[in-house]
Amino acid sequence: MDHKLIITIDREYGSGGHEVGRRLAEQLGIKFYDEELIAAAASGTGYVEEYVKENDEKAPDFSFASLISSVDTFQSLPYAKIQEEQFSIIRDIASKESCVIVGRAADYILDDEEHISVFIFAPIEERLKRKLELEIVNKKEHPLGEAEMIKKIKQRDKQRRRYYEFYTDNKWGERDVYDLLINTSRAGIDGAVDIIRTYIDKSKGQDILSGIVK
Amino acid sequence: MDHKLIITIDREYGSGGHEVGRRLAEQLGIKFYDEELIAAAASGTGYVEEYVKENDEKAPDFSFASLISSVDTFQSLPYAKIQEEQFSIIRDIASKESCVIVGRAADYILDDEEHISVFIFAPIEERLKRKLELEIVNKKEHPLGEAEMIKKIKQRDKQRRRYYEFYTDNKWGERDVYDLLINTSRAGIDGAVDIIRTYIDKSKGQDILSGIVK
Repeated sequence: MDHKLIITIDREYGSGGHEVGRRLAEQLGIKFYDEELIAAAASGTGYVEEYVKENDEKAPDFSFASLISSVDTFQSLPYAKIQEEQFSIIRDIASKESCVIVGRAADYILDDEEHISVFIFAPIEERLKRKLELEIVNKKEHPLGEAEMIKKIKQRDKQRRRYYEFYTDNKWGERDVYDLLINTSRAGIDGAVDIIRTYIDKSKGQDILSGIVK
Repeated sequence: MDHKLIITIDREYGSGGHEVGRRLAEQLGIKFYDEELIAAAASGTGYVEEYVKENDEKAPDFSFASLISSVDTFQSLPYAKIQEEQFSIIRDIASKESCVIVGRAADYILDDEEHISVFIFAPIEERLKRKLELEIVNKKEHPLGEAEMIKKIKQRDKQRRRYYEFYTDNKWGERDVYDLLINTSRAGIDGAVDIIRTYIDKSKGQDILSGIVK
């Protein structure tokens, strides 16, 4: 690779966005960050990993936030410290090397760093199918049923949306802030990887004027 | 091509969606429909092409619609007849042959017909740049200035949105109803064509479960 390449991937729960990112990074031979960021934030703040994980990609509770009287107080809370640490780790990583970063509002955090911003989604019935299949494949001891899984999917999407919109000025998953939005229900995971790779190959030196015949 | 391939493209004004569709159809060796549908609708309804063109991809005026007392009255208006004719032509075309259809709520009209649904967009500053460049390239006698062009872009997007949302139950440009949404500002026109071609190649026989390792 001749220059630094940073790809941020946000995703609906169950759409396969994590897997798309993992395979993309593997194929490109670059670093991949998703849960890896949790451990890094933990070691940076001194909080136990379990606590950091519990608060990962979550906006503060509304009831909790409403108790906070000033921004100063909020900034000094462990919760805010962890997020700040994670954002600073993301900036640090992206400044040094090519990588794929999943979630954590990375597309917004890296506003000053050139990067490709992708959103992965799929209809909820398809995501349900995928998550239920994964429960079996991963031999879960108490696999979730359909109703529970739908509830979990909606809850996680809501969490991600609230987190994203708490820390950014953008709307989660609204096309304007992304370079590419891919529905995995027919493209599949590997299809999405290939589509992003085509985007990477083609976007070098292209712009909106490049197609005009003079 | 071994089976029928239908691609619908909707697009923000100035994003290059028409050109993406034209080149895609050319490369795939299949038919392309955009303004071509106007002439067909004119010949089908007996209205002069100028009148059909004037009403193309426009929802009825709100003030005008509020005057209509019943659906029956609306259905018998020339305006409604033209739209119905155009929708019926779109269904007819798609039932017979592979094609690319631009705009006119084709993705919704073809709900029963297997097709790939794409949305092309770009930031307004980029679209402005492209449309101003096209004024020069096309040697317009009275090329629009920046302020006028921004007004035109916003007006056209609004028209398309109103048209789409008048005839469908969906939100124009909202990710859920599309397979792929491409920002042309860095992918360029040819980049977008290649991305759609990758999607076509990859989506054959793929589904959301196909990436799961068992």
